[in-house]
Amino acid sequence: MMMRNLLLYLRYDGSAYHGWQVQENAVTVQQTLQDAIEAVFGARLPVTGCSRTDAGVHARTFCVNFRTDSAIACERVPYALNAHLPDDIGVYACRVVPDDFHARYSCVSKRYVYVIRNSPFRDPFAVGRATTVPFPLDENMLHRQAQAFLGTHDFAAFAAAGGSVEDTVRTVSDACVRREGETVLFEVQADGFLYHMVRIMVGTLLDIASGKLPQGCIPQILASLDRSRAGVTAPPQGLYLQSVQYDFRDVE
Amino acid sequence: MMMRNLLLYLRYDGSAYHGWQVQENAVTVQQTLQDAIEAVFGARLPVTGCSRTDAGVHARTFCVNFRTDSAIACERVPYALNAHLPDDIGVYACRVVPDDFHARYSCVSKRYVYVIRNSPFRDPFAVGRATTVPFPLDENMLHRQAQAFLGTHDFAAFAAAGGSVEDTVRTVSDACVRREGETVLFEVQADGFLYHMVRIMVGTLLDIASGKLPQGCIPQILASLDRSRAGVTAPPQGLYLQSVQYDFRDVE
Repeated sequence: MMMRNLLLYLRYDGSAYHGWQVQENAVTVQQTLQDAIEAVFGARLPVTGCSRTDAGVHARTFCVNFRTDSAIACERVPYALNAHLPDDIGVYACRVVPDDFHARYSCVSKRYVYVIRNSPFRDPFAVGRATTVPFPLDENMLHRQAQAFLGTHDFAAFAAAGGSVEDTVRTVSDACVRREGETVLFEVQADGFLYHMVRIMVGTLLDIASGKLPQGCIPQILASLDRSRAGVTAPPQGLYLQSVQYDFRDVE
Repeated sequence: MMMRNLLLYLRYDGSAYHGWQVQENAVTVQQTLQDAIEAVFGARLPVTGCSRTDAGVHARTFCVNFRTDSAIACERVPYALNAHLPDDIGVYACRVVPDDFHARYSCVSKRYVYVIRNSPFRDPFAVGRATTVPFPLDENMLHRQAQAFLGTHDFAAFAAAGGSVEDTVRTVSDACVRREGETVLFEVQADGFLYHMVRIMVGTLLDIASGKLPQGCIPQILASLDRSRAGVTAPPQGLYLQSVQYDFRDVE
């Protein structure tokens, strides 16, 4: 029997989950997916996720790979898994990838979006899916501030304790703030992200917006390598893993 | 003490409610709002809603009026009520309106949107908020079909039993079908709507899409005045009251 390395693309609303990674005494996306894989493939297979999202964080794209000797046709896999998954997790594609493909290590870059509802009045449709800021945000000012994140920097000041990595240098290739009506969006793309990095970036921008931190402070915060110099950690509810970039050719 | 007639604008996610109107043994939006009004205004005041939305139907705008002798400033009312409302109902504006204003009878027209997710794969963010159609829809064909709804017709064939009205003639001023990516939207505006009218319109369009009903059938269905000639009643989850039009001047 031929072993295949399968790459799954999923989306999930993270509200009900304690993040991606399997934990004891808490329901996670990984174990929920493994339950569905076990139902379809007949074995509890190890699965590798592209990142470790926090509790309450959402994914419009999340990539996972696992190996199987099942002969199931690739295009049937999303339908088969969705039949065993709850409504808040959905698989929308499956590809056969090279044997050395690894959902985390093979990743070239990731893009996150942070959704801020900028209104004094609640939006019942944004509960758990956006962070509310009641005072008016100047998205153009915030966009100018965010340009300081661009390029290769040591992001130690934008990393929470508890991350597992030694090397805190990352390269940010895009950082922008824009408005769509009552929604302000922060989008950031990088070759990798440190623990809570996007949420600390957003918290810092919001501290600048409220006047707690001065405009133009981000370069000094970066240079300090000191987490206590940066802003608060914004809540998880507005954060979405938007897309994941790989550089490979499909096997099939 | 001066009596004022207050008009509230709210939004709600109808998933958790048995529609707008107060019922015994079921939680409705009306009674939830009355609880909040009682907490803020100190009395259980009668409130009039602009329409009777069904269980599971949502509102991006829903208008309500009630009379009070409270001197609370109009611009404080949304904040005060939101503090007593659950997350899935939000008040976003309050106006003082003429004494003879009535949220239902003063309404000039209403606009509904029906959201169809057109994909074989689920969107975890659309659970309870869209109806899924897995086969590809031709939105341009459906738009052409929907033009038959325009104008003044007897919509008896598009009304469920159980409505309270005698006169089933309504004037539709806009009816369109359009696509936004994997979402197909049906929007319809009219001077009034019969019981289940939008959901039967959508069900009929979907029956045309699936080939159960022939293209061009809507004029004959309208002329028949026969509910059994129209299509199925589409589920409530995709339906949103989008906007409500009044013709009046603010008192303040």
